[in-house]
This record gives sequence, C-alpha cells and structure tokens, in this order.
Amino acid sequence: MSTVLDICSRAAGVKYDVQKLTTDEKNEALTRAAERLIQRQEEILAANQKDIDNGIAGNMPEGLIDRLTLTGDRIEQIAEGLREVAALPDPVGQVMEEFTRPNGLKIRKVRVPMGVIGVIYESRPNVTADAFALCFKAGSAVILKGGSDAIHSNVAITQVLRDSLAECGITPDAVQLIAVTDRAATREFMTMRDYVDVLIPRGGAGLIRATVENSKIPVIETGTGNCHIYVDKDADIEKAIPIIINAKTQRIGVCNAAESLVVHSAVMEQFLPAFSEAMHSRGVELRADEASRAFLPYANEAAEEDYGREYLDLIMSVKTVDSAEEAIEHINRYHTGHSDSIITENRETAKKFLDQVDSACVYVNASTRFTDGFEFGFGAEIGISTQKLHARGPMGLTEITSYKYTIEGDGQIRG
Amino acid sequence: MSTVLDICSRAAGVKYDVQKLTTDEKNEALTRAAERLIQRQEEILAANQKDIDNGIAGNMPEGLIDRLTLTGDRIEQIAEGLREVAALPDPVGQVMEEFTRPNGLKIRKVRVPMGVIGVIYESRPNVTADAFALCFKAGSAVILKGGSDAIHSNVAITQVLRDSLAECGITPDAVQLIAVTDRAATREFMTMRDYVDVLIPRGGAGLIRATVENSKIPVIETGTGNCHIYVDKDADIEKAIPIIINAKTQRIGVCNAAESLVVHSAVMEQFLPAFSEAMHSRGVELRADEASRAFLPYANEAAEEDYGREYLDLIMSVKTVDSAEEAIEHINRYHTGHSDSIITENRETAKKFLDQVDSACVYVNASTRFTDGFEFGFGAEIGISTQKLHARGPMGLTEITSYKYTIEGDGQIRG
Repeated sequence: MSTVLDICSRAAGVKYDVQKLTTDEKNEALTRAAERLIQRQEEILAANQKDIDNGIAGNMPEGLIDRLTLTGDRIEQIAEGLREVAALPDPVGQVMEEFTRPNGLKIRKVRVPMGVIGVIYESRPNVTADAFALCFKAGSAVILKGGSDAIHSNVAITQVLRDSLAECGITPDAVQLIAVTDRAATREFMTMRDYVDVLIPRGGAGLIRATVENSKIPVIETGTGNCHIYVDKDADIEKAIPIIINAKTQRIGVCNAAESLVVHSAVMEQFLPAFSEAMHSRGVELRADEASRAFLPYANEAAEEDYGREYLDLIMSVKTVDSAEEAIEHINRYHTGHSDSIITENRETAKKFLDQVDSACVYVNASTRFTDGFEFGFGAEIGISTQKLHARGPMGLTEITSYKYTIEGDGQIRG
Repeated sequence: MSTVLDICSRAAGVKYDVQKLTTDEKNEALTRAAERLIQRQEEILAANQKDIDNGIAGNMPEGLIDRLTLTGDRIEQIAEGLREVAALPDPVGQVMEEFTRPNGLKIRKVRVPMGVIGVIYESRPNVTADAFALCFKAGSAVILKGGSDAIHSNVAITQVLRDSLAECGITPDAVQLIAVTDRAATREFMTMRDYVDVLIPRGGAGLIRATVENSKIPVIETGTGNCHIYVDKDADIEKAIPIIINAKTQRIGVCNAAESLVVHSAVMEQFLPAFSEAMHSRGVELRADEASRAFLPYANEAAEEDYGREYLDLIMSVKTVDSAEEAIEHINRYHTGHSDSIITENRETAKKFLDQVDSACVYVNASTRFTDGFEFGFGAEIGISTQKLHARGPMGLTEITSYKYTIEGDGQIRG
C-alpha cells in the first residue's frame, strides 16, 4: 500500500469516530493542542530552523523565508487561533429545516460533517494547525499536504497535534500529514475520491489551477482575486480615494486586494489627478488605457492582458468606461469572481452593480479588503471560495460541513 | 471552433441575459413552451419514430424502447411538467441571511443563478424538457447532452423550446443541445470549465462514474442507490413487512428502491419466514448469508459483492447482524450514501441510526422510496445527490442555485 493510500484509508477509517465527538471533547482537544504547541515550541522551532536553513541554501526569496519562519510569538498566535476555534459554536447537528409532510413523515435537514477533508497548501506552517482546527471542529478527519519547503515544521506541528489528541483519548489519525514531498504523491492524493470527500487548495493561482485540473475529488476552489473598484459617474470622490488606497495598498499580497480601477469617463478629469497622486506617492505603478492616461502623468500603457492579472504587487490597471453597464461587462469579463466594488451615490446604479456583477462579494462604497471570514463575523476562515458550487466567498466552519435528511415515520409506504 | 466549444461559449455569452429575466418572463416562456410542445407534437412524434425505428433495427431491449417512446399522452405529461415548474416559487433573489457588522457594513447573502448548467443524460427524451425547465426557472442557461439513441427526439423538442423562447423575446441560446453523438464530444464538453459552472449527470452508474472521472467542471453526482432496510431487534414486524415490500417491489428500476435487507439475529426466527413469503410470492430472489438462510427456504447464497450491488431488479441481499452498531457499520461500508431505513420501536436505537448512518436520507419506520423531490414537497427534482458537496439528497430548484454576498457601505476601509 502506498503511503498516500494508507493515510487516506486511515482517515476514512476514523471519520465516524471524529463525527461522534461531542462539542466539549473537540474543544478540550483544541485547547490541549494550543497548550502543547507552546510547551513544545523548542522542538517546533528546531524543525523550523532546518526548513529555514534549507531555504537559505536554496536561495529562497526573502518574502518566502519570512512566510516560512516561526518564532515564539508566532507559535503563540497559532495557539491562540486554536483557542478561538474552540470558542466558536459547533455547526454539527444544527437543524437547518424541519417540516412534516401530509402523510405524517417528519423531515429534518441536519448539518453533518463532511467526513474527510483534504487541504493542500504552500509553505506556511501556520496553516497546518489552522486547517486542522477548523476541519476538526467541523467534525471531519483532515489530511494535510503542505509545501515541501516547510516539511520539517509541518511534521513537528502535526506530531504535537496528534499527541494532544491521543492525550485526550481521541484517535490521532483525525489529523494526518502527507510527509512525502514529491509531486507524484500530490497527484496520487488527488485521485483518492473513495476516501476523501472534499479537497481544499489554499495558495497561489498555480496551486489552485493544478488541483482543479487534476483532482478526482470534489474541489472547493479558493483564492485567486482580480478585484476591481469601479468609480461611477455619481461617485463621491472623497470616499473613493481612501477606499482605493486601502484596497490597493493596505496589504498587496492578498487575494482581496484591488488590482484594477475602472472609471467612468465623466469623472476622469475630476477624479484621476487625485487618484494618480495617491498611487504615485505610495509607489503604485499604474497601467492605463489611452483615455485615462491623459490624466495620469506617471502611468504606463496597459496591455490587454493587464486587465486579467492578479498582480499581488504595487501595480494597478486602469480602464475607462462610458457607462455602468460597460463597467459591469468589463468586470465580468476580466475578474476572477472574488470581490468587486462600486463607488457611487446613485442607488439605482448601485443596485444594478450588486445584481449584475458576478462575484462572490459585491460591494458598494467599501473596500474589497473586507472579504474575509473574520471581517464577516464568521470567527474563522479556511479560505475564500471563488466557485459557485457549495460555498462562495469567505468560508468558516459552516461552509465546510454538509447536511443530511432524517425522515421519521410510523410505517409510511409510497402509494 | 468546435461545435461543443461554440455551444458552451454561446451559453456563457447569454447567461447574464437569462439571469436578468423576471419571474414573470420565465413563467410566461415555460407556459408558452408547454403550449407549443402540444401544438407541434406531430413533428416531435415523427422524430421520435426515427429513434424508435433505429432502436428496433439495433435490437434495443424492449424496456429501453419503452423509455424512449413518446406518445400524445406523454407529450401532454411533459407539457404539464413545464407548467408545474412555472408555478413554483422563484429561488433567485431570495435573501438567505442579512446582518450588519459593527463597522456599519450591511451584508446580505442572496440566492443567485449558477450561470451555465450542463446536464448529461441517457435516452429519455422527457429529460430534455424537464432539465431545461428547472435550470431556466433557476435563472441559468442550460446545455443538454442526451443519449445518442434519442437524438432525433431531443433535437425536435429542443427546437420547440428554443422557438418558444424566441417568441417570448428571450434568447433561444438559453437552451442548447449538443447534437453530436460521438463520445469525443462528451469528453470535450466535460473540459469546458471556463464556460460551464456545474455539470449534472443523470442516469446509470456508468454514466455517473464516467462524468466524475473525466469532468474538469464541478459535478453534482446523482443517483446510484444501494439502499438498505435494517430490521432491528425492537422492530414492529407488522410495520416491517409492508415497508420492505414497498421499498423493494413498488418500482424496481429506481435509485430509491431497497436492494439489501439487514436483520438483527434476535428477530430472525420471528421475522424472516413472513419476509421470505412476501418476497417469494412477488418473485424476488434473495441472496442471503448463512445464518439467515436457515429461515429462508428459497434463498441463494450471497457472495461478498452482493452487498455492494445496486440490482435495480427483483433481487435482494440479506445480511444478519448481532447489534444495531454492526448494522450501521455494514451499511456504511456497502451503501452508496443514498437512502437507508431502520425499522425499530426503540427511540434510542433509532436516534443512533439517524446520527450514524452516513446517507443523504436516513429513515425510521418508512420506505426508502420517499427520497424524491416531489415526495419531499420540493415540487420538482433534477436528481438525487449522493455527494456531500453543495447539495445532498433530492435536488429541487433551490439546490441548483448559488449565492453571493452583497456588502453595502458608506466609505468603510479596513484598519
């Protein structure tokens, strides 16, 4: 039996045990794991140092080294994350609907765990504990496949999590790490449909695309965000500028950052100079169409493909339109269905934008940066879904559950 | 451009037009289509006759010929189906949740159309109109790929549907048929992820499996049902027999028919003789384990693989267990996650069964035959989902929609 098959069949073998855990049992295990992560930080930091050393030896870019690096403080944050998940309400067992049919059958739609959740992610060791906590609280066994650059850190963290479960009398196989770092293992993992109920890729566009293309397991596509801000002819310019600054520059490497400005030609003259100044002073390169460049002294020329790009960088494309309809059409053509915002004081135009822009999150007069499970009040987030099946937008605990129908009768047969 | 790509890109091109239709516009078009199907039945019946002639020439089994055959009455039923969908509430635009964040952002979770739905099905011409009606009412453009044996019938029906839409001023590309009958076209269709939001296969296990294995588009898996009835030690035998007769024999070729009996050893002696008689007199072959065969004079020996089979025939497997726990374990191992029922008067055992059997629909003291959109009161059904992602169990209009978040602010930026 291959390692991957062995791991997947173990997960499937324990999923009903995980499903049966009470809320208290799950919370106790999460709290215990938080405690142990802090107590055993030396061994985690030692493992992490190996990954860092390998990264430096392999000329890993500084930003990635930073993402990979753990410290006492960061481990404390990870532990705090587990405690926060423990404090969240348990979605399992919630009655979503309840009705009685004319024949007396009493039907309940009840929230239930997924079973086995697979999570594929890049070299962020914090995701190891985070993804475990969410899937476990949602009643599922979880199989983690982290980036190979973080392998020592992930092995160490997973060991602490497994030991904590065992201490609480819970099967450690509720969390397993595929500690094989070759691509063949990842490919094999994606074929395990008979054992894994859903696969969630977390990471960059390449990882997401590869998962979607190759997985036989149902996937929840997350993440890629080519987010737009449309400044309408009826925009309040005073609101527009701070929103764009926030959406573009507060954090540039995240999926809910804005990548493209769409502007109504009627407000170009009034709006673009201030926008240009705000972006230029923050080091944002603009790539703009011809019409807008007349008002953007520092802008470069936009190529067609600029409108489809998620830069994750201090770059923003600019497109001029002559109507809200044209803006909506442009956005629906080039966006990734993540988050788009209109700046307008016109309620009718706002309504049209909300109705017709086909994104997980559509905003009026607010920054796209709010697309986030915590900002939405979900208390947690496993990712932002950009697909239409199952879950769309920020995914908290509820979004990684399924449901079943229970039907209680008294001898009913179908006529 | 290939035919399939052309069809898919047209569907994607009109999806926002379909999405914008009002409930009245959709209902008017459905009613018009119902009318036209009846008025133009001669041309539909003539096309259907070609399919029947080809089927007979190709030695198609009688059951399949019957499934393929249309008559005036059957066209009337198809038309009535369209009218019923017109009468259902429109799920699009429903506000599912609404909340205001401390920063004043007003968040609404709103039901929206999927966009483009693909339906792959076998040689049942009625599905052509039926699948169109449901997807169209749910606000999506639909692409149909029916079985090649029904190609002439499907072309004729689709033409009437398209003409009816055009008469109502609606783009006929809201419904398109892939009228190419080779397998390569079906394979190509399954790769159209950039144009098609979800693919629903309707048909036998082979079709479902092929779709799941090959599709790059997210799939909702439907249909296969290896349904179990478990007669517990605390069963009321008087209830058990009619339920089993109903579940096994009322219609044998359907996914919610029972295929396997699981019986507690404590009630074998009391229950099995009556069960044996009921099955034998209805021509049901039993394939049973050794313990139960002592009480089943006509039974054959069950092979291990019998427990995993969806017979869709007058055959039933029989398995003896010594506890409800063993029954649950057996069912979770061999079922397809469709529908399973316990017969018991013990509330505690019933609760355990409802909680732990991992099926879309879990019953107490009722026939599995109730797993059906109409029986659940949904007013329609596009299939029974046996996967855990997105929708589980009977799928009506609501289950073929997605949602989005709309967020209304007044200049909020993230701190």
